[in-house]
Amino acid sequence: MSDYAIGLVGWGTVGGGVLNILQQDGTLLKERCNLNVRLKAIVTRNPDRARDQKPGSAVVGSDLALITDDPEIKTVLHLVGGTTAAKDIAIACLRAGKHVVTANKALLAEHWDELFAVAKETGHTIAFEAAVAGGIPVIAALRDGLVANDIRGIYSILNGTCNYILSRMTQDGMGYDEALGLAKDLGYAESDPTLDVNGTDTAHKLAILAQIAFNTNVPFCAVHIEGIENISADDIESAQRLDSTIKLLGVAKRCPAGVELRVAPTLVPNSNPLAHVNANYNAVRIMANNAGPTLLVGQGAGALPTASAVLSDLIDIAVGSYQRTAEYFRFFAGGEPSTILPEEDEFTASYARFRVKDEPGVLAQMTATLSKHGVSLRAVHQGEPDADSTAEIEVTTHPTRGGAFLSAVKEIDQAGITVQPTVCLRRLDEG
Amino acid sequence: MSDYAIGLVGWGTVGGGVLNILQQDGTLLKERCNLNVRLKAIVTRNPDRARDQKPGSAVVGSDLALITDDPEIKTVLHLVGGTTAAKDIAIACLRAGKHVVTANKALLAEHWDELFAVAKETGHTIAFEAAVAGGIPVIAALRDGLVANDIRGIYSILNGTCNYILSRMTQDGMGYDEALGLAKDLGYAESDPTLDVNGTDTAHKLAILAQIAFNTNVPFCAVHIEGIENISADDIESAQRLDSTIKLLGVAKRCPAGVELRVAPTLVPNSNPLAHVNANYNAVRIMANNAGPTLLVGQGAGALPTASAVLSDLIDIAVGSYQRTAEYFRFFAGGEPSTILPEEDEFTASYARFRVKDEPGVLAQMTATLSKHGVSLRAVHQGEPDADSTAEIEVTTHPTRGGAFLSAVKEIDQAGITVQPTVCLRRLDEG
Repeated sequence: MSDYAIGLVGWGTVGGGVLNILQQDGTLLKERCNLNVRLKAIVTRNPDRARDQKPGSAVVGSDLALITDDPEIKTVLHLVGGTTAAKDIAIACLRAGKHVVTANKALLAEHWDELFAVAKETGHTIAFEAAVAGGIPVIAALRDGLVANDIRGIYSILNGTCNYILSRMTQDGMGYDEALGLAKDLGYAESDPTLDVNGTDTAHKLAILAQIAFNTNVPFCAVHIEGIENISADDIESAQRLDSTIKLLGVAKRCPAGVELRVAPTLVPNSNPLAHVNANYNAVRIMANNAGPTLLVGQGAGALPTASAVLSDLIDIAVGSYQRTAEYFRFFAGGEPSTILPEEDEFTASYARFRVKDEPGVLAQMTATLSKHGVSLRAVHQGEPDADSTAEIEVTTHPTRGGAFLSAVKEIDQAGITVQPTVCLRRLDEG
Repeated sequence: MSDYAIGLVGWGTVGGGVLNILQQDGTLLKERCNLNVRLKAIVTRNPDRARDQKPGSAVVGSDLALITDDPEIKTVLHLVGGTTAAKDIAIACLRAGKHVVTANKALLAEHWDELFAVAKETGHTIAFEAAVAGGIPVIAALRDGLVANDIRGIYSILNGTCNYILSRMTQDGMGYDEALGLAKDLGYAESDPTLDVNGTDTAHKLAILAQIAFNTNVPFCAVHIEGIENISADDIESAQRLDSTIKLLGVAKRCPAGVELRVAPTLVPNSNPLAHVNANYNAVRIMANNAGPTLLVGQGAGALPTASAVLSDLIDIAVGSYQRTAEYFRFFAGGEPSTILPEEDEFTASYARFRVKDEPGVLAQMTATLSKHGVSLRAVHQGEPDADSTAEIEVTTHPTRGGAFLSAVKEIDQAGITVQPTVCLRRLDEG
């Protein structure tokens, strides 16, 4: 039985989850992999805060030196949010000769090069399974399990808050605000959910996945991001009519001209398994040239699922396995940034909902405009006219260059055919 | 760039897949993990057989010494079937100082202790991601990704042949023989599909998963195995009426008194994601105490998906990572066999379809018998009587001790209430 001393920075939700697992399942780790994981020190901004948990034999304080000055501590569980102090802490731990396990996706997505440069310089490493999709071991699956595959695309649901809100809207007919309120009540949404609902959190995770999948440097600022704040009950109903479900999808796709990277609410056809991943679950669908499509579904957030991933990284480091991976795999080093296609060059299927005057020739004029721009329609649905003599026309397209579709819609709106701004969404077509 | 020399034993479907990937995606491996994987020798029983593939720079022969005598070869891809010669080959490679990567689930399930004892003695290791669920990286997910979890249960679809047959029967109303014929035509079933359809193949894979999940020695002979050979169109229709889908499930469940391990055709409620895994796909649903339920879905067989898993093991060994894992993790060593519960002590939900005389009091007598044996009914459905004055009664039960349910059904059949032997199936109730 080897003794392995660790430190913990950050005693919040995930840090508490780690403590829980170590206290409840520490014996299991001993039995399974002959390791006695010993938490020696907890560093937190509020060491004196009243807590439900006991720190066990760990010393608790606010000074990082409790960890950095302790030569016995080999790995630091870095469970703090933000990207400023969090970066300094991670770098200080590396420089003090510790490995770092982090769940901080924003930190990684925004400061990858700097962090891994320090890691390389110090001969220590950063593990981050918990940063993407919580308890689902997707980083390892993509990096190791699918290592012998050209990854063609990743289609993912990476934010449990958004998936919960959209699921309630779809399954129970709730409005956005009501569903968000419920998500807050249940602890699925933070009091300020901005970075979740606006797509930023998904984009952070997507950038990390893309970096591994495409073995390339992904500049986070190049990810196109749309959130779910404007999704209405009408959108949800319309998607249902089209046998689809709206999901906030993170999509990373390799194309001949570069990489498509976007986060956007997307109509997912119900024939696709992602359409059925509901509540606060996360899912990652990986299109791999040899293994075929591979789907992973699980709890993407929460104290215990995230802590489960943190501890899987810790064991990987404690047995000495992760260091070997980090030494060989090139994506750790960043490298040349890949070409991220601008939105107008993306090749995606789309959905639009037009509100038009109920007049002869309107549909003909609309479809002529779409056709002129090279947009190939997949399905068209025109509803009965309403009392105000307007009607709704829903269209879905085959994959089309994004610019062409947006130009066509703009032209239709400007021609006065529509009586309100047209709603455009992506439609998933793995084609 | 490190050069890494390997040997291949067995140039069949999977061996051919490995050759394909190395030839087509070798550059990708170089770029991704700085390894130049060089196939030096191929050993096959039929070196002179005409093949579509070229061996590249590898020498081809029938003598294992081509590999065992070559000190440059560090790892052997062991892609041969059977459990006799296959075992000798694996042991000879270990004794010659090579690591072994195998896709042979029967060999592992039936000779685990002997193989890993030799591995330990020689200081070399055996990797087997490809042995279970082909391209899905489930071994790594269970072993590493979920290392910090008490695994409560595994519910799995591990045989693509069976899943394809059952899917065709369910979706297209085919009979068993027709669906099996189609599976053969499409290459999803072998010319002799016995070990697939009778559940043995699933049981081999399940035993391996259970060994890792429960960190224990699973005697393969203790797995209860039922196949799909007797599943009829009536069973399929009945399941559909009950909003369920019949799947050949491999179930491993930890109970206070021991481990439940069985392979059986099972009614899966359509609310469970496993019900929707169709065609030749495999799926593994893992109930983990901290990470929560985690589902992995993908291609469980075929040349390229299996080869993808073989090469993931190879890279894991080539970078030196897998050896560290094997050194620490206790399940590699086998150990004390776990208590496998006898079938009558399993605690499972069930389904039965009775064909009874259409007489007053029959349902009352039946339900009284079930109740007397402590069987708690979940739902009962009695159809209209047929022209021959018999009627069908379908029941589903809450989880009950298996022995109680089977005794009750036996008593009902013996009491002359039923006019033909009652059909009993498991019903998935994750509890």
